Amino acid sequence: MKNPFSDLFILDFTHVYSGPYCTMLLADLGARVVKIERPGSGDDTRHYLPFKNGESGYFAYLNRNKESLTLDLKSPEGKRIALELMKKSDVVIENFSAGTMDRLGLGYEAAKAVKDDIIYASISGFGQSGPLCHKAAYDIIAQAMGGLLRLTGFPDQPPVKVGVSIADANAGIHMAFCLMAALYQRDHTGAGQYIDVSMMDTTMSVLENFVMQYTLNGVVPERSGNEHSASAPFDMYETKDDYVAVATGNNTQFSRMQAAMGMDIMSDPRFAENTLRRKNYKELRPILAAWMKEHTTADIVALFDRAAVPVAPVLGIDELVNHPQIRARGMIETQHHPVLGDLEMPGFPAKFSTMQTPVRKAAPLLGEDTDAILSGVLGLDEKTIAALKEKHIVEQHEKG
Amino acid sequence: MKNPFSDLFILDFTHVYSGPYCTMLLADLGARVVKIERPGSGDDTRHYLPFKNGESGYFAYLNRNKESLTLDLKSPEGKRIALELMKKSDVVIENFSAGTMDRLGLGYEAAKAVKDDIIYASISGFGQSGPLCHKAAYDIIAQAMGGLLRLTGFPDQPPVKVGVSIADANAGIHMAFCLMAALYQRDHTGAGQYIDVSMMDTTMSVLENFVMQYTLNGVVPERSGNEHSASAPFDMYETKDDYVAVATGNNTQFSRMQAAMGMDIMSDPRFAENTLRRKNYKELRPILAAWMKEHTTADIVALFDRAAVPVAPVLGIDELVNHPQIRARGMIETQHHPVLGDLEMPGFPAKFSTMQTPVRKAAPLLGEDTDAILSGVLGLDEKTIAALKEKHIVEQHEKG
Repeated sequence: MKNPFSDLFILDFTHVYSGPYCTMLLADLGARVVKIERPGSGDDTRHYLPFKNGESGYFAYLNRNKESLTLDLKSPEGKRIALELMKKSDVVIENFSAGTMDRLGLGYEAAKAVKDDIIYASISGFGQSGPLCHKAAYDIIAQAMGGLLRLTGFPDQPPVKVGVSIADANAGIHMAFCLMAALYQRDHTGAGQYIDVSMMDTTMSVLENFVMQYTLNGVVPERSGNEHSASAPFDMYETKDDYVAVATGNNTQFSRMQAAMGMDIMSDPRFAENTLRRKNYKELRPILAAWMKEHTTADIVALFDRAAVPVAPVLGIDELVNHPQIRARGMIETQHHPVLGDLEMPGFPAKFSTMQTPVRKAAPLLGEDTDAILSGVLGLDEKTIAALKEKHIVEQHEKG
Repeated sequence: MKNPFSDLFILDFTHVYSGPYCTMLLADLGARVVKIERPGSGDDTRHYLPFKNGESGYFAYLNRNKESLTLDLKSPEGKRIALELMKKSDVVIENFSAGTMDRLGLGYEAAKAVKDDIIYASISGFGQSGPLCHKAAYDIIAQAMGGLLRLTGFPDQPPVKVGVSIADANAGIHMAFCLMAALYQRDHTGAGQYIDVSMMDTTMSVLENFVMQYTLNGVVPERSGNEHSASAPFDMYETKDDYVAVATGNNTQFSRMQAAMGMDIMSDPRFAENTLRRKNYKELRPILAAWMKEHTTADIVALFDRAAVPVAPVLGIDELVNHPQIRARGMIETQHHPVLGDLEMPGFPAKFSTMQTPVRKAAPLLGEDTDAILSGVLGLDEKTIAALKEKHIVEQHEKG
């Protein structure tokens, strides 16, 4: 069966994390993703750790299955090539500050003028409208403005950001969904469109019930460490040798938990029901914490797993990458990279029964696919390409 | 222009957060989402805070634009109705523990037998395969097993989970993307399929460069509070009256920042470049922290905004909901609910130029659409429906 994604041509002006995560997912599905990079230095993440032999593992992970074309967008010839490529594109995607692509003459109107049904996608910190649309954002700024930073951390400690750039990733996956929705719409109506995703909006969108606590009851929720507002225990504890996460949502689970611990806690009327355990958790916690501190994480996990009590070790990255579940799911894939060698990286984050999502091609070296794209997609001849290279409108680095 | 999503019929067996967030996005686009609920109590989140007049704002937010049918799936008639509805469905989605739908006789094979091109989507803690596939998960368990919990928090404090159930939301939005991809595939090939999304896999998928630090260099990264491994300052500080987040990624931004502060920091060779500022951040932080502590958050934000330095107040939920940017983007929508009254909630997290995504219908009361679905979709007559109600196979609550 032919893969219908292989007919999709995506012109990708994104850099760093949010956009590249989005287009990685589309490339994994089989779409042709042509990444436009700045001549000379390329995507910033080519210079982000981790490194080996001078190449970045950050870039290599997020840009597998893509092609690279360097293009000087500020030169008239570079801009013309970009517009020629837009003519052939199903999707254009960018994550510059709002207004940048318009100033380059490469915004939605310019793209639509050369390809009427183009789907044009912009990811930005605060969106393409509103008083803050031109404000610059990094992940921590979006976590702070989206309400997430203040909600994370222990109540007696300052707020702490999510340890990874989740505001970026979250905007990227929301855009991947929106792009597929727009492609569905185009297939059924013939119409393209513009999509505007903001990191502030998408962060607010995943705040569970916290916005509703305010709009419904006027309550301003505060951070609560590892605890949950509805259930107890739903927490992390120190063990004899590390930490353990434990969550029970009802009496059945808690009853199995106390049995596994060899204790009777529920006969105390303060702890007889989930709502009471939540209400009296200040008194319940020390009882559980003392027991956890006397046992190793491995022992607690084995014991609670046997009793079907939701439990987990707090995995470090080494334990995660080597975990039997991750390995059984094939979630770590190996791809040979010309500079980095055999490289292990996270695979596509879902399993389809009829669609393949392999890491089939290493991330491109800067400008690696310049000739293939200019000749194969735009039909430029060798002489024209050579002239463009001489003027540094495009640049092609040799394969290592 | 007709909305092509209105032709999509989604049979939604999901509960709590991950699945309902996924189907909320599809319902917002215009798909018909029929939510199957347990007679008597319905989705657990009908009993999660916040409450008003006995109704849950948690449920009302995540289930707007959907219909509710109560159905006793353990009864033969309930199962038969579920299969009849699958015949009419484009998509079936569920987030029970792995194997539950199969045991009910409502798994993918059963669905495919009645609708050959069905798209069947399962969200679970650890996926449908591997040694942990039957292990129960709550959000904190998935954060712990996905590597996120250990990476979040201050280095001298225990790990802390992301304050909201991000492992749930993240699995849900990944599934929304996968569903649209499967619909695209179906449109182009005629084939349906099974989709398996796990909270552990999708959590690992958004760990930025942290997996690569280990697979490329054998480094096991640890949590680092509000700091970033590549840039400094990229941090949160205490101010005179609260906190502020500040991020500079290059010399231009830092130079503007020190000018705004009326200080010269970069002439100190330890702080002349971003890499040096990152390397010597232990010495740089106290200098910046002392200045921040002398100024209010509002003053710092105004000053840095004027200087185009990425900066943010650490917004509480009240400030977020009332923020001019959120309001200008229409990101808080009001929908009248029969019990809760006029209810403010987050809107669809993206803007399309040609597609509408309004909150057009309040979340259903338990079983509110029973008659409409049984009669309108399955063509059952009044007498048959009355008999089903008498046997509590279905239940319909009166509209308040």
